[in-house]
Amino acid sequence: MAMENYRHFLFFLITSILIGFLSILFVLIWVFQWREGLAWDGGLAEFNWHPVLTVTGFIFIQGIAIVVYRLPWTWKCSKLMMKFIHAGLHTVAFVLAVISLVAVFDFHNYKSIPNMYSLHSWIGLMGVVLYTLQLVLGLCIYLFPMTPAFIRAAFMPIHVYSGLLIFGTVIATALMGITEKLFFALKNPAYKDSPPEAVFINTLGLLIVVFGGTVIWMVTRPSWKRPSEEASTFKQDGKVSSVTENELNLNSFDKATMESSSEAWKRNLKLEEAGLRSTM
Amino acid sequence: MAMENYRHFLFFLITSILIGFLSILFVLIWVFQWREGLAWDGGLAEFNWHPVLTVTGFIFIQGIAIVVYRLPWTWKCSKLMMKFIHAGLHTVAFVLAVISLVAVFDFHNYKSIPNMYSLHSWIGLMGVVLYTLQLVLGLCIYLFPMTPAFIRAAFMPIHVYSGLLIFGTVIATALMGITEKLFFALKNPAYKDSPPEAVFINTLGLLIVVFGGTVIWMVTRPSWKRPSEEASTFKQDGKVSSVTENELNLNSFDKATMESSSEAWKRNLKLEEAGLRSTM
Repeated sequence: MAMENYRHFLFFLITSILIGFLSILFVLIWVFQWREGLAWDGGLAEFNWHPVLTVTGFIFIQGIAIVVYRLPWTWKCSKLMMKFIHAGLHTVAFVLAVISLVAVFDFHNYKSIPNMYSLHSWIGLMGVVLYTLQLVLGLCIYLFPMTPAFIRAAFMPIHVYSGLLIFGTVIATALMGITEKLFFALKNPAYKDSPPEAVFINTLGLLIVVFGGTVIWMVTRPSWKRPSEEASTFKQDGKVSSVTENELNLNSFDKATMESSSEAWKRNLKLEEAGLRSTM
Repeated sequence: MAMENYRHFLFFLITSILIGFLSILFVLIWVFQWREGLAWDGGLAEFNWHPVLTVTGFIFIQGIAIVVYRLPWTWKCSKLMMKFIHAGLHTVAFVLAVISLVAVFDFHNYKSIPNMYSLHSWIGLMGVVLYTLQLVLGLCIYLFPMTPAFIRAAFMPIHVYSGLLIFGTVIATALMGITEKLFFALKNPAYKDSPPEAVFINTLGLLIVVFGGTVIWMVTRPSWKRPSEEASTFKQDGKVSSVTENELNLNSFDKATMESSSEAWKRNLKLEEAGLRSTM
């Protein structure tokens, strides 16, 4: 990565992390300053784990997990290690998302509030289910060593697309959640009277959107991709040449599916990398 | 585009259009069956133009405008004509979005409801402002003939990224709007009692998300891109070869910026095309 390009990346990464931390700070200030704090008692303080864990895990940690292959200083680490970090961060995000769901279901049941009636809950649950599927399929396809190369390559565009779509959907769900919560919680002054809490939490919503925007920008710039194992051997005056960028298109993939799976196996890494490259 | 690939594209296009039409049908059924219909009287029937025009214009027509370069049967049309269609559809979407805003501001003012207090309104207005900027910049850069090639090329990744980000943001805003509206409108039975209207409109929310997902899938598949003018001259047994795919990366762009602008001007089309290609 050329120096100029590297600086741009760093700018977006730092902005993204700062905005992510600021979002977490905002949600914590919110629950402690204006709401009932945090507890596990069936009351509103238990509900509060829902926004706190969602913003921390399902948004911030998921965002970092998505971006982790693009950190240039990790390019000397093995691909396998980076896969473990990627999968590990997503697993942490998943666990926090599940706890955040337990908190809200528990709160609803304790207070006899119906579950799963709002669009927020529908799309949020869909997001969690798809995230689970993404995680399980990702582990089976990219970390289970017996998965043939052509499956890894064929699935990569879907893995990247659905990862980003789920990330966007989770952010949209958070925005709906904020909307619901402010209409419920703010009475006298109501949401429509724009008390400081309303402005503060609307700002949290904006921060989350900007965080999502920076993550998606970072992971869709072709020149910020982790170089493929092969390409990284062709270095010219500090720039990593992208000679393998173009190697995989659907035609070469079609050829791969016609090979015996043992042949395809040998080409595992290359195809998989190229599949990733062909996606963005 | 190979036949198999073409069939996949067609499947997504038809699905997308059907789901788009279904969304428009849903919003119309909603306002006529459960709500106050449509009128321009300062009342709820005027408000109803807001969801109807948003779903029709700002979501469906915007989605089609985004996808229009990818329709294979338009590849024999000139790039300039396709640009006019792309810009024209976005302009229609913009006009409908503005009318939908006028409807809701007019309704609020008539009923003395404050404007711009909710997260829906903040992010929605941000979406409209960014959409306006995107439209004006797009016209100046890609349709104003004097714009130098290197500006067109440099701006293309941003144009594509911000176009898709705005599209996603508009969809998220619609989901927040549905959330707000159902909490306001449903009393006895309330939203939490899941009356048929609530289930119907939650379903509309899901349809909108699926519509957005299919549009984003179609415009991010590299093999479904409109071939560049140059590449399309290299045809081999019915498949358009993608030899120019790799021609523009940041290096070649850097070179272009160092040329005199008159030289760059001659390379206008090629660079611009390649800029588009390097984005996805």
